[in-house]
Amino acid sequence: MTTVFFYSDLDDPNAWRATLQAALPDVNFIVGPQCEAPEAVDLALVWTPPPQGLRAFPRLRAVLSLGAGVDQLCLADLDPRIPVARLIDPTLTQRMVEYCQAAVLYFHRHLHLHARHQAAREWQFIPPVSAASRQVLVLGLGELGSAVAGALAQQGFQVTGWSRSPKQLPGVDCRHGEAALNEALGRCDVLINLLPLTPQTAGVLNRNLFARLRPQACLVQVGRGGHLVEADLLAALDAGQLAGAFIDVFGVEPLPAEHPFWAHPALRLTPHVASLSDPVQSAATVIDNIGRAMRGEPLRHAIDRSAGY
Amino acid sequence: MTTVFFYSDLDDPNAWRATLQAALPDVNFIVGPQCEAPEAVDLALVWTPPPQGLRAFPRLRAVLSLGAGVDQLCLADLDPRIPVARLIDPTLTQRMVEYCQAAVLYFHRHLHLHARHQAAREWQFIPPVSAASRQVLVLGLGELGSAVAGALAQQGFQVTGWSRSPKQLPGVDCRHGEAALNEALGRCDVLINLLPLTPQTAGVLNRNLFARLRPQACLVQVGRGGHLVEADLLAALDAGQLAGAFIDVFGVEPLPAEHPFWAHPALRLTPHVASLSDPVQSAATVIDNIGRAMRGEPLRHAIDRSAGY
Repeated sequence: MTTVFFYSDLDDPNAWRATLQAALPDVNFIVGPQCEAPEAVDLALVWTPPPQGLRAFPRLRAVLSLGAGVDQLCLADLDPRIPVARLIDPTLTQRMVEYCQAAVLYFHRHLHLHARHQAAREWQFIPPVSAASRQVLVLGLGELGSAVAGALAQQGFQVTGWSRSPKQLPGVDCRHGEAALNEALGRCDVLINLLPLTPQTAGVLNRNLFARLRPQACLVQVGRGGHLVEADLLAALDAGQLAGAFIDVFGVEPLPAEHPFWAHPALRLTPHVASLSDPVQSAATVIDNIGRAMRGEPLRHAIDRSAGY
Repeated sequence: MTTVFFYSDLDDPNAWRATLQAALPDVNFIVGPQCEAPEAVDLALVWTPPPQGLRAFPRLRAVLSLGAGVDQLCLADLDPRIPVARLIDPTLTQRMVEYCQAAVLYFHRHLHLHARHQAAREWQFIPPVSAASRQVLVLGLGELGSAVAGALAQQGFQVTGWSRSPKQLPGVDCRHGEAALNEALGRCDVLINLLPLTPQTAGVLNRNLFARLRPQACLVQVGRGGHLVEADLLAALDAGQLAGAFIDVFGVEPLPAEHPFWAHPALRLTPHVASLSDPVQSAATVIDNIGRAMRGEPLRHAIDRSAGY
């Protein structure tokens, strides 16, 4: 008997229960936040930490994130010997690629400008430009960032990818280091944020960075809410440094009704839908990791606990 | 000396002059509508007929359209022995593919619904669905329709293509005939119109067709303004038969400021920008056709004058 504690305000527990129990009939599947026997829990399959914290499970063998990132798990509290795995599934990647394509094509084909003209009942012809003349900069070349950069390059855009450590991707101009970032920002038409959220990257989308972008650049914010200094974005839009932004993640979710983002004409908001895992598609990795954790083997897509991602 | 008469209210005469004269130094390039020596004109390179009509040129050897279609040329007036060629260039095709991808991804990722929720300051989570569960129907499988259908199929959508005559395209479910159309409309999530405009297709996007669509389908109208019965579209949107539409072409262009389309919340309007030819990219075909016409050879991309496209 393997006991899995499940906790998420985004994912459907019934879909996960059905999928896991079909593959692993001896799994005892407990849906949080309540847990009557915390000492029986082997594995936590969670999006955010439950109210009682992950330390409430004394026999915990592993934490399996329901997202591609782990920053939302507040891992500082967790015994550093307990392995933590991110959720990587093709659906998650495919949906993020689609969202970024939708956002980049939106800006590329001037749909933000045509929307403004439509509201003013103005017929303003704007000749389309070639994808090859557009510079897209992807910050973060993990699983998702690499897929997004590759797909946009294949679509004909000029894509630069920036990451902490050196990477190589076909068709993508890969850079790393602060000097390379500065140069890439200066020629960027569309900036896509897919960095992991760590103490080093928190607040990275701030006035300093916006000031280094080519004027009238556009932002696609699909990382984490904590990457963005929201007041700095509003100032950069109002100063014309940025022409528009798609924002899918926010410092506080759901975004409060009084937040100034809602009514800003240059912002397109979506309610954290860019990428979600699908139990049917992503279950294979989770099932594999349950087996690995129970046998004491290394997890697939385990994070480096010292780096935090 | 070859005399080319150029006339268009959309295309840049100076760009065309520079490109053609660089390749063919002996071309005499006359920019309409005025033409002092119509009897000297060998070729008409035109988007719409000039005010004096194409019959004003007694020695005309060929008409080269500046668009992928020829319906705007009002060819009924022209001697049926004069060959007419459409403009096919990779830019034209690529831009149409991009526009249709932008529009399909917009609807696929619920951006029309998220826009409505943003305006109401409402955080309404809508789970994304897979591209494979979306049915896209492309009407018209000419140069542009085939490219659009193929690109969307490659992106993972379920694509049906419908055309007058039977076609075969990799990854696309190709149909023809009225019965097949009815069935395809009934399972269609996004309908893309890329039919040629002929007497048979004028007004094809009408209340009858809208009533046969799956409820809440979306429309991408990138054919010709004459395909759409505008009042029927408004009625279908208001009745919930359609959830939204991208419209790039209109019965009257520029769209008059008092037109009800401008303020309709379910419509995204663009000012005839989906696809435009680029002189630098498309000149090769035109240069080739100028040589063919002067030597009396068949034109590339010649239309069938009896079919009208």
